[in-house]
Amino acid sequence: MLHELFTPSLQHGLDLAGIFVFAISGALLAVRKNFDVFGMAVLAEITALGGGLIRDLIIGAVPPAAFTDLGYFSMPLAATALVFFLHPQVERIQGAVNVFDAAGLGLFCVTGTTKAYEYGLGLTASVVLGLVTAAGGGVLRDVLANEAPSLLRWDRDLYAVPAIVGATMVALFIHFDVLGALTGTLAVLTAFVLRLLAMRFHWRAPRAWNRRSASTEEE
Amino acid sequence: MLHELFTPSLQHGLDLAGIFVFAISGALLAVRKNFDVFGMAVLAEITALGGGLIRDLIIGAVPPAAFTDLGYFSMPLAATALVFFLHPQVERIQGAVNVFDAAGLGLFCVTGTTKAYEYGLGLTASVVLGLVTAAGGGVLRDVLANEAPSLLRWDRDLYAVPAIVGATMVALFIHFDVLGALTGTLAVLTAFVLRLLAMRFHWRAPRAWNRRSASTEEE
Amino acid sequence: MLHELFTPSLQHGLDLAGIFVFAISGALLAVRKNFDVFGMAVLAEITALGGGLIRDLIIGAVPPAAFTDLGYFSMPLAATALVFFLHPQVERIQGAVNVFDAAGLGLFCVTGTTKAYEYGLGLTASVVLGLVTAAGGGVLRDVLANEAPSLLRWDRDLYAVPAIVGATMVALFIHFDVLGALTGTLAVLTAFVLRLLAMRFHWRAPRAWNRRSASTEEE
Repeated sequence: MLHELFTPSLQHGLDLAGIFVFAISGALLAVRKNFDVFGMAVLAEITALGGGLIRDLIIGAVPPAAFTDLGYFSMPLAATALVFFLHPQVERIQGAVNVFDAAGLGLFCVTGTTKAYEYGLGLTASVVLGLVTAAGGGVLRDVLANEAPSLLRWDRDLYAVPAIVGATMVALFIHFDVLGALTGTLAVLTAFVLRLLAMRFHWRAPRAWNRRSASTEEE
Repeated sequence: MLHELFTPSLQHGLDLAGIFVFAISGALLAVRKNFDVFGMAVLAEITALGGGLIRDLIIGAVPPAAFTDLGYFSMPLAATALVFFLHPQVERIQGAVNVFDAAGLGLFCVTGTTKAYEYGLGLTASVVLGLVTAAGGGVLRDVLANEAPSLLRWDRDLYAVPAIVGATMVALFIHFDVLGALTGTLAVLTAFVLRLLAMRFHWRAPRAWNRRSASTEEE
Repeated sequence: MLHELFTPSLQHGLDLAGIFVFAISGALLAVRKNFDVFGMAVLAEITALGGGLIRDLIIGAVPPAAFTDLGYFSMPLAATALVFFLHPQVERIQGAVNVFDAAGLGLFCVTGTTKAYEYGLGLTASVVLGLVTAAGGGVLRDVLANEAPSLLRWDRDLYAVPAIVGATMVALFIHFDVLGALTGTLAVLTAFVLRLLAMRFHWRAPRAWNRRSASTEEE
């Protein structure tokens, strides 16, 4: 099956790891918002599984993978338990969490794109769904936490661009019929490294020109 | 059919009653947020039908029941009319409204779980969808009203737990092949009573340990 | 096919125009919220395509049209580019944008209703989905921008009512078997003109009676 670029067990292990780190970011935001342990679990589940869930609803893959694989469902609960008991320690290794989150971003933009393509969508739509898979959970997380989505804000380091680049690479590999474990890994790594660089050098996307007046805008 | 635990007409009557009281809570929040009568109707519809709608999209039951049963659609409009004309009186009986809301919670966690199981989902996923059915509408209500979902906040009495308990009882009954009108009613009543107790004694779920410092947290 | 009331190419051209103006409103809100260019594109896409996307998920038309027609996907990007480079000029013609938005509202409430009916939904449900098609994108836009949905607020000119009227006209035309290019156009124009009048004369819907006390409310 195409969207299992790697061996099934490796793919599954990577998926679980990506879900776990995404869930950590959801649970951490829940703590910051003063939610209780159930709020933490809900936010962890939705952050980790929400992007894939939206993708699956759109491509008609029901019931979505999030509801058929008990492992997918369990990882966010494990992440919730970890943050519940060790919140200050997890906050302290926020830098490491961000690195893992970048890895999850890279992984999910690639697997999301391939899965959408397998379900018969066009290459452009598959790229969009790769982005949705990688970034949709974080948007749902922020909406539920009643915050403007981090993905949309100009004062955040680039998040969408690495995912778009990774997903576009997959689409090109599919187009040229060279998608496989090696090229798939290359796309994952490219998105991963781009996101790391964006965090390291605070790369940001521009805002609209001349937002207030022509003279005072130089971002 | 399994998810009609009771006779069809009793089941339908209970569904309509549950929808009505959920819709009341949506219309009341709309008044508090200063929405107009259409905002009230939209919030009433989404609060009452949103949880079942999400469940139906996830299990692939399209078009969702909310769009095929005119009664389901009409009850929130009736609730809107009631709140529109008699808002202060409805606010005054908020205690009674909360009791009915607890009954709706009990009912929907049970019917949601059974419907999901009928559509072929596993027991754990069915429990999750029971919770989604019972509490999802309230989350959508709060998101549309631009508030942090009541379900997630630590300063609210337990809401998810009674639904999870009721849904889990249903799953156990299914597992041991004893789900019927009697055991189904028992699950509904258990969730209902747990929610009443949670409101009466202000049971709350804990927040993460050591949120700020190790010394000042004793919740 | 029924929901192509007009010739396919005319229908498609109208759809694209409606999508474009809806996307403009999304991109403009993104600028006001200080989002970056990717946030603008996301908000433009969701404002323009979100209503139809929800409708398609509910009626089971997957993958939704938004993901199968590259033109639908491209228009919001064009709108984003326009607002990105010419934001002050677009703001200055906000009045014209609102007129086009009203035209989009009229168009989409009609096409949304007909498409839902084609997929086998009842007339009432089809009217609701016509409203969802026309107004759902704007609600998603406001939710993502972390604002109370404009659709629900009492201090906004009527938006839902023109769409409901247009959608209801379509349902009546279907019921009496007279829906065609002429009657379809009549419904579009009615909704369009009603919305223009609502903006011109600041028509608003009432809020609940006696919101605070019986004596101080006279809206």
